Amino acid sequence: MARPNLKSLLRLSQFAVNLNLNKTTQLTNLSKSLITQNRNFSTSKIIRQDTSNNNAPATKINFYVEEYKDKGYMVLKFNKAPVNSLNLEFLTELNIQLDKIEQSKDIKGVILTSHLPNIFSAGLDILEMYQIKQERGTQFWTALQETWIKLYGSNKIFIAAINGHSPAGGCLLAMSCDYRIMTKGPYKIGLNETLLGIKAPFWFRDTMINTIGYRETEKALQLGKLYSPEEALAVNLVDEIVDANVLIQKAEEQMVKWCSIPTVARELTKSSMRRDTVSKLIAQRESDTQSFIEFTQRDSIQKSLKGYLEAMKKPKK
Amino acid sequence: MARPNLKSLLRLSQFAVNLNLNKTTQLTNLSKSLITQNRNFSTSKIIRQDTSNNNAPATKINFYVEEYKDKGYMVLKFNKAPVNSLNLEFLTELNIQLDKIEQSKDIKGVILTSHLPNIFSAGLDILEMYQIKQERGTQFWTALQETWIKLYGSNKIFIAAINGHSPAGGCLLAMSCDYRIMTKGPYKIGLNETLLGIKAPFWFRDTMINTIGYRETEKALQLGKLYSPEEALAVNLVDEIVDANVLIQKAEEQMVKWCSIPTVARELTKSSMRRDTVSKLIAQRESDTQSFIEFTQRDSIQKSLKGYLEAMKKPKK
Amino acid sequence: MARPNLKSLLRLSQFAVNLNLNKTTQLTNLSKSLITQNRNFSTSKIIRQDTSNNNAPATKINFYVEEYKDKGYMVLKFNKAPVNSLNLEFLTELNIQLDKIEQSKDIKGVILTSHLPNIFSAGLDILEMYQIKQERGTQFWTALQETWIKLYGSNKIFIAAINGHSPAGGCLLAMSCDYRIMTKGPYKIGLNETLLGIKAPFWFRDTMINTIGYRETEKALQLGKLYSPEEALAVNLVDEIVDANVLIQKAEEQMVKWCSIPTVARELTKSSMRRDTVSKLIAQRESDTQSFIEFTQRDSIQKSLKGYLEAMKKPKK
Repeated sequence: MARPNLKSLLRLSQFAVNLNLNKTTQLTNLSKSLITQNRNFSTSKIIRQDTSNNNAPATKINFYVEEYKDKGYMVLKFNKAPVNSLNLEFLTELNIQLDKIEQSKDIKGVILTSHLPNIFSAGLDILEMYQIKQERGTQFWTALQETWIKLYGSNKIFIAAINGHSPAGGCLLAMSCDYRIMTKGPYKIGLNETLLGIKAPFWFRDTMINTIGYRETEKALQLGKLYSPEEALAVNLVDEIVDANVLIQKAEEQMVKWCSIPTVARELTKSSMRRDTVSKLIAQRESDTQSFIEFTQRDSIQKSLKGYLEAMKKPKK
Repeated sequence: MARPNLKSLLRLSQFAVNLNLNKTTQLTNLSKSLITQNRNFSTSKIIRQDTSNNNAPATKINFYVEEYKDKGYMVLKFNKAPVNSLNLEFLTELNIQLDKIEQSKDIKGVILTSHLPNIFSAGLDILEMYQIKQERGTQFWTALQETWIKLYGSNKIFIAAINGHSPAGGCLLAMSCDYRIMTKGPYKIGLNETLLGIKAPFWFRDTMINTIGYRETEKALQLGKLYSPEEALAVNLVDEIVDANVLIQKAEEQMVKWCSIPTVARELTKSSMRRDTVSKLIAQRESDTQSFIEFTQRDSIQKSLKGYLEAMKKPKK
Repeated sequence: MARPNLKSLLRLSQFAVNLNLNKTTQLTNLSKSLITQNRNFSTSKIIRQDTSNNNAPATKINFYVEEYKDKGYMVLKFNKAPVNSLNLEFLTELNIQLDKIEQSKDIKGVILTSHLPNIFSAGLDILEMYQIKQERGTQFWTALQETWIKLYGSNKIFIAAINGHSPAGGCLLAMSCDYRIMTKGPYKIGLNETLLGIKAPFWFRDTMINTIGYRETEKALQLGKLYSPEEALAVNLVDEIVDANVLIQKAEEQMVKWCSIPTVARELTKSSMRRDTVSKLIAQRESDTQSFIEFTQRDSIQKSLKGYLEAMKKPKK
């Protein structure tokens, strides 16, 4: 399969919600990949299709979960074709996953990755901002805040295995982990909100400052900079870049290392690093949501989104 | 022309206010340089000599302005021979320029550079600290605060094309921009206040921390470190170093890139990064001014400045 | 002498308090080293054995002090065999040294190093946490806070000449200096508290953030990372790495450079950088001490320490 570029992926993402994925094909592919990759686990592996959101159509499987309870960690794979865009339903399911993880005594850590090729996550679904009623908008933004609070504020170990493009909200998810490994290749990662005419919220900004520092963030956010894996490594936006065929293996090696640290001490330490940043959003969730609603309801923004969506409906030459 | 070193430039700077520049020579030189450099602009270029300060002698032209309204930016060139030292009159004019820029709907960004060779700006004029009455000191410091608040807090794009030495206040002006390109060569940039027996104010410090990080700032400020272009690049004090003959061209390329970002989103983003740092000074302008006055009135500081000025009056061997 | 590894040094450290060092041997060795190294000082050198703690056994000399008053600095050498572990008596003596330094008009700066081979300091003495009564625990922690407040908050120049391992509290002492030079070799430096099941206190964390930045600290503290000299240099945990035979010489060169900066301006600048970080601990010393007491009194921690100490009593194979 040819690697699609970011533009075509973003193009696809807009219609993700309308697509009906063929469940059988997906599962067959999953089985194949699990059989063929032969990852040499001596531990028991529990694979489950997770459809926590009972209202979702039967054909949608947004997450694949592999649990290695003997090893103390699991792999959580995004599977919302075509680009793992973050809409209300997906975020709601993700939040349920994060709650389960937090409560699990067997699970110390989670490898976050995508089951889809060439894409980690394309970020927020633009359809959640276009001609949306205030109630839906509020629900959506509240769910997104919830995801970040649970993920960035979790004391569990999160390792991002970034197997493709990771713009905007996709970059936020990756940055909220404890360690990031990215596949080498024609992929991009970054907070490119300004390029879409949008300002990244303050907690996106704070997460980036905590990851790559103040000055690099100042440039990156203003320019909406999308980094190649090599550029991302150079500014510490990712911690490691590897060939695609060893991505999961490297993530697992890193996870084993992190799991070997005395848990209580590591958790208290992580909490001590992140508490203040999380508390800042918690203290102003309502005003932050209000800002989002007001911003997206501006005529100029709606016009811009409309133009964007119409441009994407046109066939690509 | 031989390149003067920093010491001789600082020596010269003390008498800058007494010099009467030959206006005709300056303008002839300007015309020549504009004709010969042939910068291939297809846009209309408006050149104006800016003498906003009506009380200034007719022979003084502190700023040259080139406006490229079709492109959305302008070039602002310091022209206060010999070293663009920052005294009350110069800062007052600069503040008027900055106000005009802020109010202009045509101008998205400004390239800050010097019309003088080998010097960007030598920083604060020491004569503004030596045997100065409280009223003048207060006016001077207030004007300097104003410059930084307007420049660092502006939502417009500022790119520094640093074509020579840039110590102390010159470094502050450069650091307050969004992007810094420096000419390779025997030039120095840095906050060297301690070497003159002075403590850099907290907002100089904060601007530096936001640019090169806490630890490098801690060392740089204590040692009064002046960086070569290569050293400045290594710690991100500048973003790029280039040969002198392509400095303005590279600054323009960068400006075109920044101007292409959706304006409202970029401005909101910049404001979100810098607001807190600017607010800190705004909240304590009076006490900061008071500190300056009290510090410069100390006998030890006046003695030190006197010695410094006397040393500079002696002919250089 | 073969270089002991960190594990064997930590093993030794537990019994440090029980050892009776042979004073004569120590002094003979000191004299030898001073004669043979021929450091070409033209200034008067005052060597004193410092036993400020009058209750200490006559055979214990915890500090050697070399004063170069003409040059304006001194060398303070830790000499608490076998590993310069930080217990209440050592910290109390160190605090007296720091008070003397602060009050001295002749001394602008201090080179901190170890008189023992292969170890700078192994950090907190674990015996101060194991089965300790609340009163002793409170005294110990208060003394440790005092050391950091005096050292990190001092306006004098402190240069760490790190001539061996420097884990945990040893790393804290080094990070509290203004400049760090480390000997190349099989040595490690870092805050490895999590590996011992302990969370580094917030002021250890803040000191590390101020030294190597937020992101590197987040990883380092969670993983309890111990850096080789080369790794430490790469993240700016140390400023320079040199061969063992030039360590003190390089530290002295650096000290001469720092001493040449106008003192008042440098001191005000240092204070402006560090005041807020120090004030944070001063504002919550009691609750910080309370946290330490409660944490070390936990059954799980006591069990962990017991196991650790018993493991060390066993002969090494």
